[in-house]
Amino acid sequence: MILVLKLNQTEEAVHEVEGHVRELGYEPHTLWGEVRTVIACIGDETKHASLEALVNLPQVVEVLPIQKKYKLISKEVHAEPMPVTVEDVRFSAETFHMIAGPCAVESLEQTVATAHAVKKAGATLLRGGAYKPRTSPYDFQGLGEEGLEILAEARRQTGLPVVTELVSERDVEKVAGVADVIQIGARNALNYALLTEAAQSGKAILLKRGLSATLQEWLLAAEYIAKQGNPRILLCERGIRTYETATRNTLDLSAVAVVKQETGLPVIVDPSHAAGRSDLVAPLARAGVAVGADGLIVEVHPDPEHALSDQAQQLTFSVFGDLMAELAPYVSLGGRSGFRT
Amino acid sequence: MILVLKLNQTEEAVHEVEGHVRELGYEPHTLWGEVRTVIACIGDETKHASLEALVNLPQVVEVLPIQKKYKLISKEVHAEPMPVTVEDVRFSAETFHMIAGPCAVESLEQTVATAHAVKKAGATLLRGGAYKPRTSPYDFQGLGEEGLEILAEARRQTGLPVVTELVSERDVEKVAGVADVIQIGARNALNYALLTEAAQSGKAILLKRGLSATLQEWLLAAEYIAKQGNPRILLCERGIRTYETATRNTLDLSAVAVVKQETGLPVIVDPSHAAGRSDLVAPLARAGVAVGADGLIVEVHPDPEHALSDQAQQLTFSVFGDLMAELAPYVSLGGRSGFRT
Amino acid sequence: MILVLKLNQTEEAVHEVEGHVRELGYEPHTLWGEVRTVIACIGDETKHASLEALVNLPQVVEVLPIQKKYKLISKEVHAEPMPVTVEDVRFSAETFHMIAGPCAVESLEQTVATAHAVKKAGATLLRGGAYKPRTSPYDFQGLGEEGLEILAEARRQTGLPVVTELVSERDVEKVAGVADVIQIGARNALNYALLTEAAQSGKAILLKRGLSATLQEWLLAAEYIAKQGNPRILLCERGIRTYETATRNTLDLSAVAVVKQETGLPVIVDPSHAAGRSDLVAPLARAGVAVGADGLIVEVHPDPEHALSDQAQQLTFSVFGDLMAELAPYVSLGGRSGFRT
Amino acid sequence: MILVLKLNQTEEAVHEVEGHVRELGYEPHTLWGEVRTVIACIGDETKHASLEALVNLPQVVEVLPIQKKYKLISKEVHAEPMPVTVEDVRFSAETFHMIAGPCAVESLEQTVATAHAVKKAGATLLRGGAYKPRTSPYDFQGLGEEGLEILAEARRQTGLPVVTELVSERDVEKVAGVADVIQIGARNALNYALLTEAAQSGKAILLKRGLSATLQEWLLAAEYIAKQGNPRILLCERGIRTYETATRNTLDLSAVAVVKQETGLPVIVDPSHAAGRSDLVAPLARAGVAVGADGLIVEVHPDPEHALSDQAQQLTFSVFGDLMAELAPYVSLGGRSGFRT
Repeated sequence: MILVLKLNQTEEAVHEVEGHVRELGYEPHTLWGEVRTVIACIGDETKHASLEALVNLPQVVEVLPIQKKYKLISKEVHAEPMPVTVEDVRFSAETFHMIAGPCAVESLEQTVATAHAVKKAGATLLRGGAYKPRTSPYDFQGLGEEGLEILAEARRQTGLPVVTELVSERDVEKVAGVADVIQIGARNALNYALLTEAAQSGKAILLKRGLSATLQEWLLAAEYIAKQGNPRILLCERGIRTYETATRNTLDLSAVAVVKQETGLPVIVDPSHAAGRSDLVAPLARAGVAVGADGLIVEVHPDPEHALSDQAQQLTFSVFGDLMAELAPYVSLGGRSGFRT
Repeated sequence: MILVLKLNQTEEAVHEVEGHVRELGYEPHTLWGEVRTVIACIGDETKHASLEALVNLPQVVEVLPIQKKYKLISKEVHAEPMPVTVEDVRFSAETFHMIAGPCAVESLEQTVATAHAVKKAGATLLRGGAYKPRTSPYDFQGLGEEGLEILAEARRQTGLPVVTELVSERDVEKVAGVADVIQIGARNALNYALLTEAAQSGKAILLKRGLSATLQEWLLAAEYIAKQGNPRILLCERGIRTYETATRNTLDLSAVAVVKQETGLPVIVDPSHAAGRSDLVAPLARAGVAVGADGLIVEVHPDPEHALSDQAQQLTFSVFGDLMAELAPYVSLGGRSGFRT
Repeated sequence: MILVLKLNQTEEAVHEVEGHVRELGYEPHTLWGEVRTVIACIGDETKHASLEALVNLPQVVEVLPIQKKYKLISKEVHAEPMPVTVEDVRFSAETFHMIAGPCAVESLEQTVATAHAVKKAGATLLRGGAYKPRTSPYDFQGLGEEGLEILAEARRQTGLPVVTELVSERDVEKVAGVADVIQIGARNALNYALLTEAAQSGKAILLKRGLSATLQEWLLAAEYIAKQGNPRILLCERGIRTYETATRNTLDLSAVAVVKQETGLPVIVDPSHAAGRSDLVAPLARAGVAVGADGLIVEVHPDPEHALSDQAQQLTFSVFGDLMAELAPYVSLGGRSGFRT
Repeated sequence: MILVLKLNQTEEAVHEVEGHVRELGYEPHTLWGEVRTVIACIGDETKHASLEALVNLPQVVEVLPIQKKYKLISKEVHAEPMPVTVEDVRFSAETFHMIAGPCAVESLEQTVATAHAVKKAGATLLRGGAYKPRTSPYDFQGLGEEGLEILAEARRQTGLPVVTELVSERDVEKVAGVADVIQIGARNALNYALLTEAAQSGKAILLKRGLSATLQEWLLAAEYIAKQGNPRILLCERGIRTYETATRNTLDLSAVAVVKQETGLPVIVDPSHAAGRSDLVAPLARAGVAVGADGLIVEVHPDPEHALSDQAQQLTFSVFGDLMAELAPYVSLGGRSGFRT
């Protein structure tokens, strides 16, 4: 950490700060600048107490943290890519995959029909929620176990691996029994107990960015998963909360580019939740491909108008087919395989 | 819901929209305005499907929701106040209480000493985390069960009811065995599985506002608790995430005023987490009292510099004592009892 | 406007609200819903007083505005596209143009060299600031009139039309004397006096979105320009202010897609200011093309490390050349002409 | 500045970075940490080029700025308070003043009546806009010069000094001819040309915080004013733009406390614009007093329902009188004089 001192400190005042630094287990290196004095504190921040309290010393203006705290998923620490394989699908910098399916599993018919349709259009994984976290307790909360059985049947019929959300530690075993990829949603993105149990299942994890998670928080949430010995993590950017209300969320594609510098993990873009409106899914999907994402996750429903959730953003089969055709050349430009339409 | 139509629609085009509205279970009332036509859709939104999908019709500009979805905690539905009693402490519009204690339970000595100190200064509940959700998996995560035992001992010695955080459904029984008030932290504020189990314990719940939760989301999270038959909810404003980084969070005191119009539940202000710096706790605490909060929750530690978490924001015993003395006349101005120093 | 009433209103109470509505010049249409009553108020909001004050009536929960207030630039009002021609450069849905050049004009040599380099790489307009609005009064504020002369010389030598920023009403004549496109920067994006004078110059205007402007505010700022009889407006998305600090701003590409539905005006993307780092310019530029923007504006400098402003985000000539080559196939995919490398 | 390097750098790689630092005019001090190496760069940042470009070197993770760039208004540089006197009104840490009046000057009668009413209730300055910056070009833009004359008449009749907004450099002379305090609104808060001309008038300046201005940006905007030799600056917190839409803006009272540590300038709170609703003005005003502001600015209108702007947030005379009575004991608690009711 770096302590930034107030202007015009006496030597004595600086020595007093140095004393605090030493006492907390760090070696202070004081740099008397032309304008301002700073103290660089040498020591492993992961082994000693934080120096943050020193911001309250009268001599100190600011305490600047230096070390990043994610290691297992850090490209800086481990330069190699960290591709994730799910059955015969490989997410990596050389491939591109579409995950598609309904927001919620509503019935066997709806889910199986959607699975067939998205497979036919070129999707390689099926998404669908059996457990739905809803803002209102009076909204449809998903079919639960029945939904999981339906997803299993859809997989049997289509061969598509299944991505489905986990919302409670109580359901880990059940969800892991069906899911090929366990999704952690935006609301639970900093629910470390859930992340830990999901990780322990050994299943691949699709980790959505929290509603207002910083990149640091998002990557540290991934580190919680990796720390359980499970490096099969798909990061998913789905829009963040900002002041702008014209879209449901603000898709942060810069984040995709930054995160890919920080970690070798694959990054997926979710244009459906970002936009909240079906007519914006195609442009945002194209942009997600172009920015360098490793895959997309898109909501598709046989009849969005009568869906039980996310009515405004789910695509019909036909629109989804058009989207796949539209995306293909963008994927080719990136020199990636695995995407077929 | 209100459907706002695009300009210059033909009668036929409008009838087509009305058809969709009827088909989804609502009665359309079309109002041909001087400039723009809108269709008000009559029907109970909690019983029928959403009309949100209609935003994708070519005739529609916008779909405006009308009904609020919280009922049990709504002042509009139930005009009466909803005071919360914890042992002999009553949170209400006529009283004011200080909840104080360390960020984390670190040892028996630290916790008991703090409990005695805050009680002496006038606090009427003890806070302290046995389970700590931390952004980094490498940071101190709390003492767990040992921490709960320490809290129990602190209560035995001081008689102060205990507020402590729950971070996992697996711990509900253990935490409820010690806690008088179960705290749900900002990161889990939209973790509905956890809210539901916490509520079922029958304990009072201190529900922090999520990092970027809207007032609607916050109140609907409270509704999840109330829906379990547990109306003993303390709402806690602790700062929201904004672009400003000078403070850890931005304390949203307007929210306190708005929420108190919407619900009869008590509202607590947490100046410690909002500020992230001990020197800002006093002014924000005074402002919290003045805006009309029903209590405060403040972090206090025997030696903040050596604390295992939140080093920069915890108050020493002496500073906390001064704070209580400073707050007393502000509490008196509000005509509230229960606050003593 | 729509007035949303509190639950359980008596007829008398509703009539009282209707009285207020009538008295303010609107015709109330009361809809007694199953759950909640709303009053739709018919009347031209641009001709009568606002009904917003009625939110303070005890019967009223909320006042929902309906009408959009931009007309001249609205696709809803005028369905035709509004292409902008600058010399022989045409911004439209069928073309794509790159605007490039230094952040600030620093010297004749630097500017002319950059103009030649970006032209050679395929840019069709030159950017460069003679007047620089800087956060600190102690930072380089631009060369002023000398900078304008340098820009004029660069145009003479390369034939590239010039885009340059206006920061003061006092400089309109001077800037308009040189600029082919007058840029209004993010800090002045809601400075209506400046917008008005810039518009009156008759020059095309590149209107950046304000730091935290909503799409409504941005489009209404454009309407200020159009209202002066000047429809030659290039909207420019350059990133918005959010809680995320990993990038200088958060590029809001959803906004590009939404704005293109709302208006026929061309939309330009500025990846340089959005990212604040040169290594992110390429992915964001690709995404900007893919989302459907009509052009890009990118900062290029002969020696970014020694630049007098925006050191971290300006591209070298060589990197800019690579960027143009990389973008070309993405532009082709969109079926647009005018982009050459 | 501090350069944070990537892990595991060779000596040679570090020396290369040091070379860049020296070449840009700074002295590098390299600190080989246990985990990570940083280079502290000694030199006056206000005299040399920025080191920000170095973030693009392959060895560098991050460039941390150290020095603050405001000086003239900095408490760190000049420890003394900077009270502002306007006629016989003194804004300082020992006093408290209420500025009140209509949003916009609409007529002689409306303005004079309001001036008398707010004076009677205890306000010591009159506010009122003759030039109104409005989001829509079709909304009432103020009476202009006629409005200024009305304000002059109101001052003649009541003796209250006048606070009125300046929105164009073209109007400086006219506005300064009437105003005792020139207001710079939130939209023009980073319009440095306007700030500079307003400052040169020698009038006191009430500087509102920009819609999404950081505290640094706000204070640097004040520094622009002070740099013209005009230290008579009243900072005004009026709410910032956040994701929350329940209030028009989010009043950031933490900012008041932080800013008062950074500068000796008085800080005023504007609860009217923060809330956007008259029923929230009183609690936010109380909180503003309690947090330590040096004054308030509140909108008052004889008949808010028929006002030409800000209908929802202006107080009636009677409500304003009640507010003053309610605030008086809070002001007394702060030990401040100058507030009378």
